Amino acid sequence: MKKLIDFTKDELIALKADLEKQYAEYKAQNLSLDMSRGKPSKAQLDISNGLLDILSAEEYERIAPSFDYRNYGILLGIPECRRLFAEILQVEEKNVIIGGTASLTLMFDFVAQCVASGIGGCEPWARQGKVKFLCPVPGYDRHFGICEYFGIEMINIPMDGEGPDMDMIEELIKDESVKGMFCVPKYSNPTGITYSDAVVTRIARMKPAAKDFRIIWDNAYCIHDLTDTPDSLLNIFDELKKYGNEDMVVEFCSTSKITFPGAGVSALAASDNNIKEIQNRMNFQTISHDKLNQLRHVRFFDGKAENVIAYMQEHRRLMEPKFNAVCDSFEKEFSALGIASWHKPNGGYFISLDVMPGTAKRVGELCKEAGVVLTTVGATFPYGKDPEDKNIRIAPSLPPVSELMTATALLCICVKLAACEKLLG
Amino acid sequence: MKKLIDFTKDELIALKADLEKQYAEYKAQNLSLDMSRGKPSKAQLDISNGLLDILSAEEYERIAPSFDYRNYGILLGIPECRRLFAEILQVEEKNVIIGGTASLTLMFDFVAQCVASGIGGCEPWARQGKVKFLCPVPGYDRHFGICEYFGIEMINIPMDGEGPDMDMIEELIKDESVKGMFCVPKYSNPTGITYSDAVVTRIARMKPAAKDFRIIWDNAYCIHDLTDTPDSLLNIFDELKKYGNEDMVVEFCSTSKITFPGAGVSALAASDNNIKEIQNRMNFQTISHDKLNQLRHVRFFDGKAENVIAYMQEHRRLMEPKFNAVCDSFEKEFSALGIASWHKPNGGYFISLDVMPGTAKRVGELCKEAGVVLTTVGATFPYGKDPEDKNIRIAPSLPPVSELMTATALLCICVKLAACEKLLG
Repeated sequence: MKKLIDFTKDELIALKADLEKQYAEYKAQNLSLDMSRGKPSKAQLDISNGLLDILSAEEYERIAPSFDYRNYGILLGIPECRRLFAEILQVEEKNVIIGGTASLTLMFDFVAQCVASGIGGCEPWARQGKVKFLCPVPGYDRHFGICEYFGIEMINIPMDGEGPDMDMIEELIKDESVKGMFCVPKYSNPTGITYSDAVVTRIARMKPAAKDFRIIWDNAYCIHDLTDTPDSLLNIFDELKKYGNEDMVVEFCSTSKITFPGAGVSALAASDNNIKEIQNRMNFQTISHDKLNQLRHVRFFDGKAENVIAYMQEHRRLMEPKFNAVCDSFEKEFSALGIASWHKPNGGYFISLDVMPGTAKRVGELCKEAGVVLTTVGATFPYGKDPEDKNIRIAPSLPPVSELMTATALLCICVKLAACEKLLG
Repeated sequence: MKKLIDFTKDELIALKADLEKQYAEYKAQNLSLDMSRGKPSKAQLDISNGLLDILSAEEYERIAPSFDYRNYGILLGIPECRRLFAEILQVEEKNVIIGGTASLTLMFDFVAQCVASGIGGCEPWARQGKVKFLCPVPGYDRHFGICEYFGIEMINIPMDGEGPDMDMIEELIKDESVKGMFCVPKYSNPTGITYSDAVVTRIARMKPAAKDFRIIWDNAYCIHDLTDTPDSLLNIFDELKKYGNEDMVVEFCSTSKITFPGAGVSALAASDNNIKEIQNRMNFQTISHDKLNQLRHVRFFDGKAENVIAYMQEHRRLMEPKFNAVCDSFEKEFSALGIASWHKPNGGYFISLDVMPGTAKRVGELCKEAGVVLTTVGATFPYGKDPEDKNIRIAPSLPPVSELMTATALLCICVKLAACEKLLG
């Protein structure tokens, strides 16, 4: 079979007619399928139901912690929960702070603090004029949202199979108004790429012009492996130490995709200096986060990172077939035609599909008209603007496999149809 | 018995010697008692232990909400929880947002939003030069902390038995740089005063020069009645409506002193406009707060405000004897001497004691040396500076009655001793 761009006009017209027929058949089914957000499925949530039973009143009375977790206090999180996250992130307990349900809040609040009060002894960003952030693309819309909310100008940094374009980054950080960068270093949202050792090392040894340059290291998928050949990511703090650069990065994670997104626990890891500054702000902002929920999580995993990691295999059991289903369809439908590219990830929550440039928005429309909701096309870029209009983020976790296969089949038709339309002008 | 100021020098010397002897006896006991913070006692926490059992996995499966509360989503809080708080605060459900464990966070984040993004279509406070807040005194140190964190200048507004000095407020709000006010309108922290109807009405009809003037209406003790003659507070939003002033106030509360301070639920109530602006910020800041904990609270009270109010009688049963013990001691030890004043509150968490001007710090030192920790003297005023050095906040909730009586007896000795020292020069 030949590539689509080598098709004659007549061949394109014939293919288009055939695709339109197939599309009409799907449309007639009145589908209502959602691949838009990285939400765990009901089956995934069910495997954490034990959390609901693990801290009964009787059990709490039995364990009776010396500090009563039902009461005020312990701003940074209960020690056993800080220890668990320290083990997961391979940092020291003193460098961990436990948050509420959402690591997004920890990130937003950290950026807010830099804007309002400054960081590292520097002037607040709000008083430094125009401030810029580097944003590896495609990336996570909620990161871009934080920048947009605070009026931080975003600069696109292209990603390849190793991570973001480091040559470009090393050039841009010479500008003192460049204050930070958002990274999802493992199973990146949405590409599924894990930053290579070389990229992590280059990041760790950067010497940005701005003393208050901070990297938001959103390690959301740190233990979210889906295959027998998981990626491995260098420990960023080990690398930073080599260059005396520990203050440059703040790392974030949560149990949102481990236990319950609606009732989990988030955490950050940071250098002694950053912890001190963050703690100082939190001291004015809250009394403590939910210590009983922290205790539930610790008990559910018996306080051991190895148990959390073993537990992730339960998620893999449910997730891997979905990733396979989507990628197998892509392979079958697109490989020969050469009209799309994607990376089959070893973990995380997303598959990033690059379709023929100039057709992604049209694919999104076609899918929507036929009842399949994708992540808003463009959302994977700052300001919602995909410069090549080609990236589509697929979130396969929520629908059951059968629905997912239907949705993917339709998506493939739409991708091909939009490509035909484009080539036919 | 005559007043202390009418004592002769010899009488003062004799009294002082006697007090020093009593003080030494207490000191010899090596006490370690804490009346510093408004923490519920273990017995109070125990009455909410049912919360830990109310949402078992089996129970969750049985009720199976149509929207799965274990998953992402429902930014503003689950409807049944918004409804419960709406009933408690007597506002509409659409005007309520549920937060995390601490209402302090809701307040801090609201002020942060005004500073960083502005409110009511006005410029961010950060770009308006010097910004000021009115602070009724004595007041709550954590409110003052929020102002201090954001560099907001605080202006003391004296309180009397009706609330803050409204003449002074009405004058000060003519200044456009005065942007807001912190109020604890019911059982005020620390005075225990409830704002009179006249004061609430005058607040509601204010027309501040600043269009972005906002009152933080911290109704922390809205249903925290301790006696058979509870105070009643006008519904601020009913009053505001009469003057088209609904956007001027945002109200806050939580279950911290109803269920568990370490694992409760907070809420705010605001006008449609303010809800819209707060929601817009939250949209960037979080995905959702803990919906399962919201559900636990709703189920624990069967979703009815009347049950929460009835339940507060359990707290009263434990708290009222403590308030009585402290106030009875004050009455017995101070009334005749005329060296201190206080208000016996009908609810809330604190007793505010005004000692002889210029002696409060000394009382704090004496207590501390003898092993009794009070709230840091001065903390009830902005910048920790009590201009008359006379106010002491007593938090009677945490210690058992016997300990509380010992601590209060010592406190009374210290108050008298410091007064003698002062009068003797």
